[in-house]
Amino acid sequence: MINKLIEKIKKTNAPIVVGLDPMLSYIPKHIQEKSFSEYGETLEGAADAVWQFNKAIIDCTYDLIPAVKPQIAMYEQFGIEGLKAFKRTVDYCHEKDLVVIGDVKRGDIGSTSAAYATGHLGSVQVGAKKYTLFDEDFATVNPYLGSDGIKPFVEVCKEEKKGLFILVKTSNPSSGEFQDRLIDGRPLYEHVGEMVAQWGEDHMGDSYSYIGAVVGATYPELGKVLRKIMPKTFILVPGYGAQGGTGADLVHYFNEDGLGAIVNSSRGIIAAYKQEKYESFTEEHFADASRQAVLDMIADIDGALKTAK
Amino acid sequence: MINKLIEKIKKTNAPIVVGLDPMLSYIPKHIQEKSFSEYGETLEGAADAVWQFNKAIIDCTYDLIPAVKPQIAMYEQFGIEGLKAFKRTVDYCHEKDLVVIGDVKRGDIGSTSAAYATGHLGSVQVGAKKYTLFDEDFATVNPYLGSDGIKPFVEVCKEEKKGLFILVKTSNPSSGEFQDRLIDGRPLYEHVGEMVAQWGEDHMGDSYSYIGAVVGATYPELGKVLRKIMPKTFILVPGYGAQGGTGADLVHYFNEDGLGAIVNSSRGIIAAYKQEKYESFTEEHFADASRQAVLDMIADIDGALKTAK
Repeated sequence: MINKLIEKIKKTNAPIVVGLDPMLSYIPKHIQEKSFSEYGETLEGAADAVWQFNKAIIDCTYDLIPAVKPQIAMYEQFGIEGLKAFKRTVDYCHEKDLVVIGDVKRGDIGSTSAAYATGHLGSVQVGAKKYTLFDEDFATVNPYLGSDGIKPFVEVCKEEKKGLFILVKTSNPSSGEFQDRLIDGRPLYEHVGEMVAQWGEDHMGDSYSYIGAVVGATYPELGKVLRKIMPKTFILVPGYGAQGGTGADLVHYFNEDGLGAIVNSSRGIIAAYKQEKYESFTEEHFADASRQAVLDMIADIDGALKTAK
Repeated sequence: MINKLIEKIKKTNAPIVVGLDPMLSYIPKHIQEKSFSEYGETLEGAADAVWQFNKAIIDCTYDLIPAVKPQIAMYEQFGIEGLKAFKRTVDYCHEKDLVVIGDVKRGDIGSTSAAYATGHLGSVQVGAKKYTLFDEDFATVNPYLGSDGIKPFVEVCKEEKKGLFILVKTSNPSSGEFQDRLIDGRPLYEHVGEMVAQWGEDHMGDSYSYIGAVVGATYPELGKVLRKIMPKTFILVPGYGAQGGTGADLVHYFNEDGLGAIVNSSRGIIAAYKQEKYESFTEEHFADASRQAVLDMIADIDGALKTAK
């Protein structure tokens, strides 16, 4: 799957991923009203609004981008109905040949991690039959529990040719409380980065490992250090746009081959129509605003990478 | 909810929690066959088997115990149908007046953590209506992302009078890879423990905080240290039984009031009938074996606490 991701990044010239993190407050009134008129102000109605919103954005952007990253929390907050909308979104993205990174940040140990890996990346045996479940291509995983937590995910990835992005350094202001603390003179995130590189060594695609890392866009200098520690690790970079990162901040996350990183933007794309910059699109044509925001993001990152050369 | 948990622990004299972590391999053949004959070898059939298994164990143990801890991964591995069985289990435990600790180990930042908190502990606004979702009483949470990840959970707990158990030191062999690394001369888990105590200070029940900690049973000496660092923090202790911990290992996790900890056993209770010790119950009467295993666990811990006095 890392090979497919890279191939699609090359084809689109867009090392970006659209975060499908729909809050009800992002969803235009006319979509909400239509869903509520059909299903009432119910969880089913909310889930339908989420799905209609996603579908419109996917339809308007899928030809420009290699991948999407649905954030499962935004679906889980609507319970079972929300998770059905998550699954429907994943399936639809596959129809559109998009790589799907499930931003699930799961992490446990042993058979429990194996169960999460099964649910999100694998398939489950029921009697003589096998079923795939949420069926994302990549999942994000939390490393706090160590190798016991990661290896069951890696095993499923090997079987299914899927991949992981393991949290190394997150983009939020308080990420330093634990991640930046010095251990033998180096911050915890560097130690985690080293382990990610190790976990990924035996699970290589053509040029990069199936086991990637998450490193926030909000710390450009770290990109440089972690890029060296994890030379063959693909880096998923959240924090672009709404969280403050710009294309110029991100050049060190990439290798000299122009690859090695994929930058996420969620609100900046899916709620673009709410920005002054895109307000001329109007709320009704929110998905066209998203398309323009994708084009602008691609140009920003491409420009920054060219300038850096 | 921490007050209710403590009240129920006192009433049952059982500082224990039964982990409802059903793997298909734990579920007796006759239950699987019945479910599959009704629903086929489908995800619905698997979910029904899980639910019937849980129900039988709850019916045979609820009068002895204060709480249960369903591990959501074991349900998530069956997709939407599995999550319906999770929800059904939570609801049924509430009917039986059990405190439900959702072992979900979620953790993200800002609005994403808020969405997880809503899904598991809170309620979501849809138009003019409000809905509760999975509706556990406590949730387990991962601290790797720092305060930004925890505070949105704490906010929902304050509103809903619910609680958290935050991972401090987990019971698995590789937990030390990051958690034991020394920062300013002290292991990371102590620093996390200090933060848990801080996060909990403003959110106190009558004698303990609503914000608890997870500390594995497999490191008795740590119990002593962490008990002092977090004097008003309730400690959820996994790793008893199948993972190797015994009652005698656990005395330091408790305070002098005999409270302050709740010990989880999953496989040791729900798959008790597979142990030589309980095989006379036979597979058919698996739930009676679980009841006996609960009684034995209560006696083991009670004996250890009395000996320690």
